Amino acid sequence: MRFHLEASLRLSADAGAAEKAISDFIRDAGPILEKGAPEGQGAKITEWRLAKNRIDLVIDSDRYVRAHDALLRLRRPLSELLGKQYRIGVRGMDVTAFEIEVESDREIAHRIPYVREMRHEGGRLRLILDVGEGGTLGQSEIENRIPDRIVSLLEEKLEKGYGGKTEHWELLWESEKREPKFRADPTEEMQKAGWIKHGSARGQWIYGPQATHLFRTFEAIVLEEIIGPLGYQEMIFPKLDTWDVWKKSGHAQGVYPEIYFVCPPKTRDPAFWEEVMDYYKVTHEVPLELVKEKIDLPIGGMCYAQCPTFWGFLQGMTLPNGELPMRVFDRSGTSHRYESGGIHGIERVDEFHRIEIVWLGTKEHTLEEAEKLKGCYKHIFEDILELTWRTAWVTPWFMAQEGKTGLSEMTGAGTVDYEAILPYNGNWIEFQNLSVNGEKYPKGFTVKAQSGEALWSGCSGVGLERWASAFLSQKGLDPSNWPEEFRRRFGEMPKGIRFL
Amino acid sequence: MRFHLEASLRLSADAGAAEKAISDFIRDAGPILEKGAPEGQGAKITEWRLAKNRIDLVIDSDRYVRAHDALLRLRRPLSELLGKQYRIGVRGMDVTAFEIEVESDREIAHRIPYVREMRHEGGRLRLILDVGEGGTLGQSEIENRIPDRIVSLLEEKLEKGYGGKTEHWELLWESEKREPKFRADPTEEMQKAGWIKHGSARGQWIYGPQATHLFRTFEAIVLEEIIGPLGYQEMIFPKLDTWDVWKKSGHAQGVYPEIYFVCPPKTRDPAFWEEVMDYYKVTHEVPLELVKEKIDLPIGGMCYAQCPTFWGFLQGMTLPNGELPMRVFDRSGTSHRYESGGIHGIERVDEFHRIEIVWLGTKEHTLEEAEKLKGCYKHIFEDILELTWRTAWVTPWFMAQEGKTGLSEMTGAGTVDYEAILPYNGNWIEFQNLSVNGEKYPKGFTVKAQSGEALWSGCSGVGLERWASAFLSQKGLDPSNWPEEFRRRFGEMPKGIRFL
Ligand SMILES: Nc1ncnc2c1ncn2[C@@H]1O[C@H](COP(=O)(O)OP(=O)(O)OP(=O)(O)O)[C@@H](O)[C@H]1O
Ligand SMILES: Nc1ncnc2c1ncn2[C@@H]1O[C@H](COP(=O)(O)OP(=O)(O)OP(=O)(O)O)[C@@H](O)[C@H]1O
Ligand SMILES: [Mg+2]
Ligand SMILES: [Mg+2]
Ligand SMILES: [Zn+2]
Ligand SMILES: [Zn+2]
Repeated sequence: MRFHLEASLRLSADAGAAEKAISDFIRDAGPILEKGAPEGQGAKITEWRLAKNRIDLVIDSDRYVRAHDALLRLRRPLSELLGKQYRIGVRGMDVTAFEIEVESDREIAHRIPYVREMRHEGGRLRLILDVGEGGTLGQSEIENRIPDRIVSLLEEKLEKGYGGKTEHWELLWESEKREPKFRADPTEEMQKAGWIKHGSARGQWIYGPQATHLFRTFEAIVLEEIIGPLGYQEMIFPKLDTWDVWKKSGHAQGVYPEIYFVCPPKTRDPAFWEEVMDYYKVTHEVPLELVKEKIDLPIGGMCYAQCPTFWGFLQGMTLPNGELPMRVFDRSGTSHRYESGGIHGIERVDEFHRIEIVWLGTKEHTLEEAEKLKGCYKHIFEDILELTWRTAWVTPWFMAQEGKTGLSEMTGAGTVDYEAILPYNGNWIEFQNLSVNGEKYPKGFTVKAQSGEALWSGCSGVGLERWASAFLSQKGLDPSNWPEEFRRRFGEMPKGIRFL
Repeated sequence: MRFHLEASLRLSADAGAAEKAISDFIRDAGPILEKGAPEGQGAKITEWRLAKNRIDLVIDSDRYVRAHDALLRLRRPLSELLGKQYRIGVRGMDVTAFEIEVESDREIAHRIPYVREMRHEGGRLRLILDVGEGGTLGQSEIENRIPDRIVSLLEEKLEKGYGGKTEHWELLWESEKREPKFRADPTEEMQKAGWIKHGSARGQWIYGPQATHLFRTFEAIVLEEIIGPLGYQEMIFPKLDTWDVWKKSGHAQGVYPEIYFVCPPKTRDPAFWEEVMDYYKVTHEVPLELVKEKIDLPIGGMCYAQCPTFWGFLQGMTLPNGELPMRVFDRSGTSHRYESGGIHGIERVDEFHRIEIVWLGTKEHTLEEAEKLKGCYKHIFEDILELTWRTAWVTPWFMAQEGKTGLSEMTGAGTVDYEAILPYNGNWIEFQNLSVNGEKYPKGFTVKAQSGEALWSGCSGVGLERWASAFLSQKGLDPSNWPEEFRRRFGEMPKGIRFL
C-alpha cells in the first residue's frame, strides 16, 4: 500500500525569516517520519516549498507510517519551532491531493465516502480522495482519522479477496449417537397433524396448541434448570432495534442483508393517508408505491439478535461491585431475519421465538458463568431431551454479524454453537449458542464497574423453533416415544384444533 | 347525487331490422329503470340511437338507481329481445362518458382511482370518470361494481363532513370510587425507582426485573382467573402483519397512520449492501437515503391488533360443531403503534405487550362467552386489583381501525372499553377492551361451521402497560399499600438492578 499526500500548512505570517530553520527541520525529519516503521520504511517528504505564509509539502509513504499520520506528526514540532523563535503560528492545514494505492485483483464498483475517484489498472487500485476546494475530506477528517478507516476498509476487502480467514468451526464435544426413532421431516409431520400452519408472511408459521405447548415445555425446562438455579432475573428487552443500538453493538457494520427494516409513517395525519385509503377502498388493492412514498426513512429494524436492546438499561452507568455478576433473561417477543429463499421448515424461519440469556461481570465472572451454563445445557440435552448433539467453537456471532470471519482476539471470548442432527436429511443444525463476548458490549454501551475492572459479558440464545426441529426430528411427534424426563414435563397433549 | 352515463352496446350485426322493437323496448323501459326507487325517482334514458351494429345510450339518474346499474339492468332483456327474434347478440359495452355529481362544501385534493378529473364548483363536486379509449374504467369494472365503491367512498366522506356519526361512548357500569393511596405519576416513579428506562426508539421502554415481575403477575392472574377456568388453549400468533391479513381483517381501509411499516431488503446479496456497509465503516453514520433505495416495498407492518394473524390458522376451513366454541389466546410478542408525538408515560407507548384472547362459535356461543369473560374481569378488577374503574359501550375497535364511527349494525356486536382513572392527572384511560366482532372475521377469512350456521367471534386485549398504569397510578409502587389478593400473588419483589 502506498500513500501520496500534498498538503499546505497555513501560517500566521510570512515565514521567510525562518526558511533555513524549516529547511533544516525537514532535512532532519527522518526519525519522526520513520518512527515505528521497520528499517528503511515509513514516510518521506518528497518535496517542500515555503511560499510566504504557507509551507507546501509532498509526502509519500508506505503503510508503516501513513502519509496523513506523518503530516500530523510534523505539525506540532513545526509549530513549536516557528512559534518559539519566530512568533509564527500554524493556523491550519489544507490538503490539495491525497491518493492511496494498493495491489488488488479487483476493482470496487461502488462509491466510498471521501473518495472522489477509483481507478483499477495493472493490478493496482488507486483511490483519489475527495480533497481540496469543495471536497469532503479536509483537516477535520484527517484529525478524526477518516483515512485510517478507509485503509481498514481496504485491508478488510483485500483480506477477504485473498482467501483470508474463513468461518471457524472446530468440534469441541459430541454426544453418543442415539438411534433415531423417527426419520420424517418434522415440519411436514406437524402440518399433517394440524399442529402448525403457514403464516401469511415469508418464513412465518402460526402455532396451534400442541406446538405452542411444546415450546412452553422447552421454556419451562429453561426456567427450571437454568433460570431458577442460577438466579437469573427476568427483564423485557425492546423488540424494535434502532440504528443507535446497532451502532453500539456493531451490527451497523454488516447486518443489512438479513434485516426486516422498519419505517414509520411520515405523519399520522389521516388526510395525508386519504389517497391510499381511497385507493384501497375503490380497487381493493394496496398502492404499495404510493405507500412507500408516504413512509419515512427506516429507523432500524425488527429485533435481530435480541440482546443489544438490553444494554440501553445499563448504558453510561457504573455498576456497584455488589451487582456483579449480573444475570438477566428475556422471552418477551419475536426475532426476524430475512433468511435465504427456498422452502424451509421450522428450522429456518423468518420469524422466530427465542429466550435470550445475558450475563455480565468481570472476565472471571463471565467465563465462570459460561461454564455453569454449559453444564446446565449438557444436563438438559443429555438427560431430558436425550439428543444426539455436539458443540463447536465457531467464529463468534458478534464478528459474523459484522461480516467478519476468524476468531476473536480477546482470549477466552468466542461462541460455542450447539448442533443437532436431523435424521430426515442428515444435516446438522445450530439449535442454540452460548457466547462469551469479551468487553465488546460494556465498551460499546459505555458500562463500567465500580472497581474500574474491565467488564465482560456473555449471552446465549435458546431458539424454540430450533429446539423443536432438533427434538422432533430425532424423537418424532408421538409422546410415547419421548424420553421419560421430557414426557413428564410435557404432561397432557392439548386437544388442538380439528377441521372437517 | 346525480349520474350521467354515455355508453354503447356493441351488437354482432347491423340491427336495422330491429329498430322499432328496440324503440318500443326503450319507450317501455320505465319499470326496469325505476324498480326499487321511490315514485318518480330512478334512471331515465335521455337519448338513444341505433348506429347499425351499435346502440348508443345516454342514461341520467339519481342515487336510487345508479346509471351503471341501469345499464346492466337493460343488458339482459335487450339481449333476449335481439337474440330470440333477430339472432343478434350483444357483444359488449363501451363507456364513452361517465360523471357523478354530488353536493359538497369541499373539494377532494388527491387522486381517486378510475377518476380522471374532479371539479368543485358552486357547492357541487363533479367526478369525471376515466372511461373511453385508454381509460381505466370499462365494462369489466362496471360489472365488478367499481362505480359503487366510488359512490360509497363519496358517501362516507360526505357523512363525515356533515358531522355524521361520532365516536360512540356510553357508560355501562362504574365501580365505587376507591380512595387513591397515591397521586404521583407512575412512570416517573418507576424511573426513579429504577424499574424502567427509556428504550432507544420512540415510545419504547426497557423493563427491569421489578416491572417485568409486575407484568408477569398480571399475566398469572389472567391465566388463573380466565384462561384456566374457561378453558383457553394457548397458541402463537404471528407478529408481522401482511397486507393480505389486513385486507381480510379490514385494517387495509384505515390503519396506515399508526403503522410501523416493514420492508425487506431488495436482496440478501452482501455485494448489494457493500456500499452501505462501507459508508458506515468510514463515516460511522448509516446512509439512510441509500438504505431506503435498497429496501423493497413494504410487505405490511409490525403487529397492530394482534388477533388478525390468528385467523390464518382457520382460513378457508370448515369447523366441526364439536370444535365450537373455540377459545384461544396469545401472549408471544409485542404490538407496535405510531402514537401521537409528545411525552407519554407507559400508558401510551409505541411498543406494548398484550395478551390477546379470542373466542368463536355461533352467535349464542359468542355472546355467552363474552358475558363469562366480563364476569371474570369484574372479579379481577374488583377483588384482586381493587381498582376504581368503569366500562363503556364504544365504537367497535374493528370499525374505529377502519376509520369509521358510530356503532355496528350487527345486533349484539360491539366493543366494551374498560377504563380506569389516573389520580395524578385525573384522566381516564382505556386499560383493556372486550369486543364481540359479529361475523366480521369468519367472513373476512372464509371460516365456516359444519352446521352451516353463521360463525361469530370476539376478542379481548389485556394491555400490560395499561394495567400497570391503572394499578400503579391508583395503588403506588409500594407493595405494603397493595390489595392483599394482589400482593399475595406478586410475592417477593425482585432485587432489580442498582447503579452507583
Ligand atoms: N432463521 C432462524 N430460525 C429459527 N431460529 C433461529 C434462526 N436464526 C437464528 N435462530 C436461533 O437464534 C440463535 C442465535 O442466533 P445466531 O445469530 O447465532 O444464529 P445463526 O448463526 O444465524 O444461525 P444459522 O447459521 O442457522 O443461520 C440460534 O442458535 C437459533 O436458536
Ligand atoms: N399505545 C398503547 N400503549 C399501551 N397499550 C395499548 C396501546 N394501544 C392499545 N393498547 C392496549 O391494547 C388494547 C386494545 O387496543 P385498542 O386498539 O382497542 O386500543 P385503542 O382504542 O387504540 O386505545 P387508545 O384509545 O388508548 O389509543 C387496549 O385496551 C390497551 O390495553
Ligand atoms: Mg443465520
Ligand atoms: Mg389507539
Ligand atoms: Zn445475544
Ligand atoms: Zn383482537
